Amino acid sequence: MKQGKLIIISGPSGAGKTTIVQALLAQSPGAYFSVSATTRSMRTGEKDGVDYRFVSREQFQELIRTDGLLEWAEYVGNYYGTPAKPVLDKLEQGFDVILDIETKGAKQVMGKYPEAVSIFVCPPSFAELERRLRARGTNTEEDIRRRLTQGRSECKNAGMYTYLIVNDVQEKAAAEAAAILTAEKCKNKAHLSVLKGE
Amino acid sequence: MKQGKLIIISGPSGAGKTTIVQALLAQSPGAYFSVSATTRSMRTGEKDGVDYRFVSREQFQELIRTDGLLEWAEYVGNYYGTPAKPVLDKLEQGFDVILDIETKGAKQVMGKYPEAVSIFVCPPSFAELERRLRARGTNTEEDIRRRLTQGRSECKNAGMYTYLIVNDVQEKAAAEAAAILTAEKCKNKAHLSVLKGE
Repeated sequence: MKQGKLIIISGPSGAGKTTIVQALLAQSPGAYFSVSATTRSMRTGEKDGVDYRFVSREQFQELIRTDGLLEWAEYVGNYYGTPAKPVLDKLEQGFDVILDIETKGAKQVMGKYPEAVSIFVCPPSFAELERRLRARGTNTEEDIRRRLTQGRSECKNAGMYTYLIVNDVQEKAAAEAAAILTAEKCKNKAHLSVLKGE
Repeated sequence: MKQGKLIIISGPSGAGKTTIVQALLAQSPGAYFSVSATTRSMRTGEKDGVDYRFVSREQFQELIRTDGLLEWAEYVGNYYGTPAKPVLDKLEQGFDVILDIETKGAKQVMGKYPEAVSIFVCPPSFAELERRLRARGTNTEEDIRRRLTQGRSECKNAGMYTYLIVNDVQEKAAAEAAAILTAEKCKNKAHLSVLKGE
């Protein structure tokens, strides 16, 4: 059976990654959106297995020890990472898998799976990103500053991604994501019998 | 100014390359479809500059001597090749350029321009290719045999192309070609100022 595609999506908070992820899910029947594991506490409104898989420090460290994570990092005393098993199972079954992860984690995944399709999503400018973050109306000034600083730092790592989508107009960005997946599926077909002249 | 994309299309006669070329031309404003030069005589119904640029042996040999061809070959005593100047001029002006050439010529172009986007178009099977060639009703039996033999030989070189389009349903094949061009345009954007955090 044909392996699914492993698709890495990164980009600053507010760049519009959700639009891209939804376009890819709509395009690829049965595609799996990976849910990260974390040791931080669940916040109001979050659901286990939807926003994150909430695990204990012991469980997370066991995953690290057994090489059970595609990528992981520690932030402010909490662990975050991508459990490998559900991702690899889905790929094996022929389904595409989408990871929405930060650039540091993406680098780890690219190292392990050079065949992964990597897409960086960025805003047309940081002035526009700031405008979008303010328009949400739910972020504090400190939060906006933090996201902008982190976004600038993420953007400086965009060069390691194969594809870049400038999310200016949502529909265009979604169409580009769908096109990238279609194009990637036109690669590596050397196994087809017609190519042996049959 | 941004360079255009150089797109190489190859595939057996009857695979449906014309559909692919038309999809790409429709997608890319100002795109240029390269017309090959040849020393063979013009046939009834052919137009100079449309089907081929008909040139003398002396003119062709001068192009070879001055490195004025992206690729060339000699078949049954006649020269065929792609004049470099119009292609390079269009790329320089930012327009995409499409070459519909055989695998031997494609190999020469890939060697000179590794950044070229290469697409191989094949039929779902050779039984289907034979059916299509017969359905045209204009080919002699000898012609059909020759095209099938040549098609099989071309398909064996498909592995060197980045993309493969299996032209089963025309609309799907055309959409794949358009997606490949869109995806390729999402590459190599490291020059964007937003990636410097601006």
